[in-house]
Amino acid sequence: MKATGMVVEYNPFHNGHLFHALAAKEQTENDVLIAVMSGPFLQRGEPALVSKWARTKMALLSGVDIVVELPYVFSTQHATTFASGSIAILGAMGCSAVCFGSEDGQIAPFLHAVQWKKKHSKEIDRLIQQYIRLGLSYPSAVAKSYTSIDKAPVLDLSKPNNILGLHYTEAIDQQQLSITPHTIKRVEANYHDEILGNNKISSATSIRKKINGSYLEDIEDHVPPSTYNELLLYKKSYHQFHSWEDYWSILQYKLVTSSLHELRDHYEIEEGIEHRLQEAAYTSLSFLLFMEQVKTKRYTWTRIQRMLTHLLTGTKKSEVQSIQSPTYIRLLGMTDNGRNYLQKNKKKLTLPLVSKVGGMIDPLLNLDLRAGRTYALGIKDRTRRQEFLKKDFTQPPIHLHSSS
Amino acid sequence: MKATGMVVEYNPFHNGHLFHALAAKEQTENDVLIAVMSGPFLQRGEPALVSKWARTKMALLSGVDIVVELPYVFSTQHATTFASGSIAILGAMGCSAVCFGSEDGQIAPFLHAVQWKKKHSKEIDRLIQQYIRLGLSYPSAVAKSYTSIDKAPVLDLSKPNNILGLHYTEAIDQQQLSITPHTIKRVEANYHDEILGNNKISSATSIRKKINGSYLEDIEDHVPPSTYNELLLYKKSYHQFHSWEDYWSILQYKLVTSSLHELRDHYEIEEGIEHRLQEAAYTSLSFLLFMEQVKTKRYTWTRIQRMLTHLLTGTKKSEVQSIQSPTYIRLLGMTDNGRNYLQKNKKKLTLPLVSKVGGMIDPLLNLDLRAGRTYALGIKDRTRRQEFLKKDFTQPPIHLHSSS
Repeated sequence: MKATGMVVEYNPFHNGHLFHALAAKEQTENDVLIAVMSGPFLQRGEPALVSKWARTKMALLSGVDIVVELPYVFSTQHATTFASGSIAILGAMGCSAVCFGSEDGQIAPFLHAVQWKKKHSKEIDRLIQQYIRLGLSYPSAVAKSYTSIDKAPVLDLSKPNNILGLHYTEAIDQQQLSITPHTIKRVEANYHDEILGNNKISSATSIRKKINGSYLEDIEDHVPPSTYNELLLYKKSYHQFHSWEDYWSILQYKLVTSSLHELRDHYEIEEGIEHRLQEAAYTSLSFLLFMEQVKTKRYTWTRIQRMLTHLLTGTKKSEVQSIQSPTYIRLLGMTDNGRNYLQKNKKKLTLPLVSKVGGMIDPLLNLDLRAGRTYALGIKDRTRRQEFLKKDFTQPPIHLHSSS
Repeated sequence: MKATGMVVEYNPFHNGHLFHALAAKEQTENDVLIAVMSGPFLQRGEPALVSKWARTKMALLSGVDIVVELPYVFSTQHATTFASGSIAILGAMGCSAVCFGSEDGQIAPFLHAVQWKKKHSKEIDRLIQQYIRLGLSYPSAVAKSYTSIDKAPVLDLSKPNNILGLHYTEAIDQQQLSITPHTIKRVEANYHDEILGNNKISSATSIRKKINGSYLEDIEDHVPPSTYNELLLYKKSYHQFHSWEDYWSILQYKLVTSSLHELRDHYEIEEGIEHRLQEAAYTSLSFLLFMEQVKTKRYTWTRIQRMLTHLLTGTKKSEVQSIQSPTYIRLLGMTDNGRNYLQKNKKKLTLPLVSKVGGMIDPLLNLDLRAGRTYALGIKDRTRRQEFLKKDFTQPPIHLHSSS
């Protein structure tokens, strides 16, 4: 049995993800699909709409065979670290291929870009620093440094999924893994209808907007029926989906009762931004108004959200700086096919596969558990909140039987 | 002009307080009544029902001439420190008398008890330690140690107001202040009706119970009309009164996302109780259920509530241990008569009188401001919460004009 890995957030799982999963299996001609998925907090520095358990179930119901968790310390990070942690986990799971979605859609430009970057790395680093000093944000400085150098890659690195794809391809190269990278062109709305029938493809962002606007029915055509059912079930159980606004009260508490020194101890809080964050916390009525007050040209919205996630979860610089690479793989769920793969390959896995976290001691896990508890505190229903606070200990990996 | 001091919490101001104020003025034959009042968090380790500003107004409308704030570091403390800070402030305000309510009602037993305690201090200390080792709570150990010694004071030191009164009388003696202590017997319900007309006297505890039960009308006969109006006004503005339940979410957040080491850094968190607090925070649906889970024979309810207040406000051991005595007096409000006193005596005050805290730097004030911000975070209405977060900077001392 051979496995294809995917790096995902599934926030929530939609028709585009379904298309990606089907196409990844077809293109790589492998038997098993493994997704490494962000836990409660995502790469953009925000809480997931629904729990990692609900998102795992959505994935298993739509063709993914195994879902494992990307530890917090890699999930809420800039693209380099996010990609490096994700690829390391897919490598440890024994994947022979990785398939990512990109705006480009061809793998050759990615492979070429990796080699080109290796060749020009010093010059690129110098240019990035120079553009940052001129006041550009990090992503803009990166894009501008590439185009400033002769024979730049043809890959359009202003596109977010091309950027991530390049980082995945680079990580495979750097970690010297025998994984073949593949890419699939991201599909637009109403594209590839021949595969998905009458269903529509929309971005996760637009789907989340509709969900937060409380028009759950509006997304029915944009997600698989199994996702739609899971979302209905979540709403029925928790009476909410998660957004930053649900965490505003505790974030505000953290910001206005911590000393500047304590704020500065948190990961990614640099350059005196703690003053700005604290001052804005006094005068903001909501998370959105707070963000509008703190954002500057220098800091992207995403970068600030990541800082705030680290503040909220109490993630200190000292806790992150010692962590290099994943030390375990947390299994969130599997189908019968996935279980079969794990049984046949358990000796080939290069990291311990963890089904139960009770009794395990690991600095990475500590951060994961704290992120999970923090996520629980955004649940308004007190009974559900209490249940969720212990969920990392009470919830076994989801096993989706073929008959179900 | 001569002033009489009183140590108060006014949570809320009720007919018993009115009686105390009238009787204090009559018995001491002084011109001015000065109250040193706890700010947002009280001696028993709980948030005040309404803001210090509303409580100041209640006092000024009922015969108190000046209200000053007892700094946080003295207000949420066991009786010794609470009394020592309060008396130091009344001394610095130039009071020639202090008048406290007590179950006993005569001053002679207090004066005698102070001398008796000085004489037997070593024996008392030894006995207290012995009883604590046997598992008694601190207050019980104190009471038992007194009765174990020959010729113990006749004062009944199992009564809470006698205990506080003894600490006030002791503090005057220890600080060598030229203040004459007075006491007034606490009045029971339906007692002294000849002074208060048909109005009733109830304890603040029973009044708070009625208020939290949402039957505001039930307390109308138990408080002066001015208090009743202030409470109505507060309810109309803030849509709530403050109780620990309003702070449960942020306390729970603090408890489940802090490390045991971080919890232990907080003032009064001793003997490994941080494990017990954190564990209970995972499984408690409300503050009340949490308290029922953490209380033990060894720790009084009050002692635990004080620990939790320090956790909530982020008060560290290192911040409290360096503080010995008040360094300023924060003026909360005055009548014309009070203002007159301050103008005539401003050179006699032995600590700086502070009307505006902007720009002032003082470790005690730091804690007061943080306590104020923490108190604000229990306000559910977001607009009111934001206003309140800056209230220590925006609210000048209340000046109640005689004509008003």
